[in-house]
Amino acid sequence: MSLPNVLVVGAGGVGTIAALALTINKKCDVTLVVRSDYEHVIKYGYDIDSVTYGKINNWKPPHVTKTVQDAVTKFGEFDYIVLTTKNIPDGGLTCEDIIRPAVTEKRTTIILVQNGMGIEKPMQEQFPDNVVLSDIQFIGSTNLNCKVHNSHKDQSFVGIFENKNHPNPEEYYERADAKVKEFMELYQHEDEAINKVNFDANVKKSRWEKLIYNSALNTVTALVDLDVNRCQIASANETLFRPAMDEIIKIAASDGVTLEPSSKDKFIHIGDGLFYSPSMLVDHRKGQLMELEIILGNPLIVAKENNVDAPILSVLYNLLTLVQFKIKEQRGVIKIDEDDYKRIDSDKYPRIFAEAQKEILE
Amino acid sequence: MSLPNVLVVGAGGVGTIAALALTINKKCDVTLVVRSDYEHVIKYGYDIDSVTYGKINNWKPPHVTKTVQDAVTKFGEFDYIVLTTKNIPDGGLTCEDIIRPAVTEKRTTIILVQNGMGIEKPMQEQFPDNVVLSDIQFIGSTNLNCKVHNSHKDQSFVGIFENKNHPNPEEYYERADAKVKEFMELYQHEDEAINKVNFDANVKKSRWEKLIYNSALNTVTALVDLDVNRCQIASANETLFRPAMDEIIKIAASDGVTLEPSSKDKFIHIGDGLFYSPSMLVDHRKGQLMELEIILGNPLIVAKENNVDAPILSVLYNLLTLVQFKIKEQRGVIKIDEDDYKRIDSDKYPRIFAEAQKEILE
Repeated sequence: MSLPNVLVVGAGGVGTIAALALTINKKCDVTLVVRSDYEHVIKYGYDIDSVTYGKINNWKPPHVTKTVQDAVTKFGEFDYIVLTTKNIPDGGLTCEDIIRPAVTEKRTTIILVQNGMGIEKPMQEQFPDNVVLSDIQFIGSTNLNCKVHNSHKDQSFVGIFENKNHPNPEEYYERADAKVKEFMELYQHEDEAINKVNFDANVKKSRWEKLIYNSALNTVTALVDLDVNRCQIASANETLFRPAMDEIIKIAASDGVTLEPSSKDKFIHIGDGLFYSPSMLVDHRKGQLMELEIILGNPLIVAKENNVDAPILSVLYNLLTLVQFKIKEQRGVIKIDEDDYKRIDSDKYPRIFAEAQKEILE
Repeated sequence: MSLPNVLVVGAGGVGTIAALALTINKKCDVTLVVRSDYEHVIKYGYDIDSVTYGKINNWKPPHVTKTVQDAVTKFGEFDYIVLTTKNIPDGGLTCEDIIRPAVTEKRTTIILVQNGMGIEKPMQEQFPDNVVLSDIQFIGSTNLNCKVHNSHKDQSFVGIFENKNHPNPEEYYERADAKVKEFMELYQHEDEAINKVNFDANVKKSRWEKLIYNSALNTVTALVDLDVNRCQIASANETLFRPAMDEIIKIAASDGVTLEPSSKDKFIHIGDGLFYSPSMLVDHRKGQLMELEIILGNPLIVAKENNVDAPILSVLYNLLTLVQFKIKEQRGVIKIDEDDYKRIDSDKYPRIFAEAQKEILE
């Protein structure tokens, strides 16, 4: 019997360590899709410096391809897709589009190793009979020019996303249960000091809880371009962080999830004294698109549906939408010709812009 | 009889044109305080390019000094101080401290050619028997390396600030009336095509009205680092600008000032098609301290006193406080030693910071 065939998409800090962990365990075939560093990886591999996997120079994944399509052509159908890219639905190519060529109906299980809320919905819509799993990572890993630095133990929480629209829920969840068990085995090293894969019995709650941090600290620090601790020195715990967290807790409650108030303090103090920059701030500084919709946009959709007032998060979202707009223009994702807007009522700008972008896309 | 003695403090775009206008009219003696460009101005003067005053190369004000103290030592007591600096009470030196050496009790009239709300209060407190006047300018003038470019007609609105604490209001307002009339005459050119000095019968209302623009557009654009019109293309008229303006109108109402709702549309459309950056955005981009307290902090104090809810402006203020903090550190106004905050509860950071800054100041 052949081993399960696993495709890892996204070769950042998390994706490379995932490919390494799966390879070391020898319970599956591993293919890693490497977009920008492909030539380098083929020749030299990665230099890994990991707190648990150790130092490995020139590590080459078993199979490397430049695109998802190439992976399918060369290495066949996949049992698992481990998706570790950023999730930016407003950035052009959606995650669904990225993995589509490698999704075999029913057979392929999709594992979203990504932040945020509501990320499973477009997946379930577009691949209605594929199991979609959640994987929340606490690994602390970066990949800079094929030098991978992994500072924390590879700990993860894997579980099943709610799937409200499946025509046969019993069959779906049974299949999903089997898949989550199999994947946990593939990923779990025999020595639990190396990594620890936990079963996440309540994915929705885990994700709402992580948002307490991400919706408040990621967003504020990204907007003001200041690390978490400097914001705290300037009183942000009281003026912004805690009040924003309270709003997330209220929205989660409206979604049927009770979050412990102690979570707030956990996240407020998680980086005391570290002077560190959350991912959204790093993205802003690098001029990269931010995971705005999945971290803040989708929770606010839930708030709106459930009539929950979230004034702070709403202002943060509306402001970050403008920052995202700026980054999109800088990266050429959108184009503004100033002459198009001369002598026109500024209230009509958004409509004119939408039309202009449609033309560009068509 | 000698002519009135006028000191212009602040040699930016507005200050240099004010000194020029007063000099041309020949009805007063003019001294301009020039801090950073002093050596250049003494040698070469200014190159003026003005829509109404024309092109004047190497224009030298009648008297130029490097400091306010020098002006007093060399050119005696002053009848008027025309203060055109930025007003940043949290920036180290306050405006009161800047002009103090030149304020002669009772004799000197202080004219604040500055943006914002509540700027007269510290002046009235510290110089209780000096007349304090408001001067709102619509001139459009910049000074870059002693090249002054003035794009709009020199139009201003001069009036008397309310002075609630004067022991003898009747005497005070009578004196203020005389001063405002005299100053308007000194500043008004015989040809009204050149400039137009208007009497401002309701300073409070004029200033609240200007805040409709400044509190909403200055603040949002500064935070997201994007010009007004790009923000509008990205829907900010509806998501942020108008809702923020509504809050200012509510706060003004609580202060007894009824603003016409049409003002909102006036300011929304004032720069349609121009793709321009308001002053606070320009300051942020240059790494200069922003006029945050007088544009947003003071209006929010009024809101709090009168129990007016202003959720959007409050979030904008709390965020901009963090940005101002960042700029202060960049400019060395405050110092953060990261080691001071290791192993300390982040809720205690603000207190530790305040103590550390106190030590630095003492």
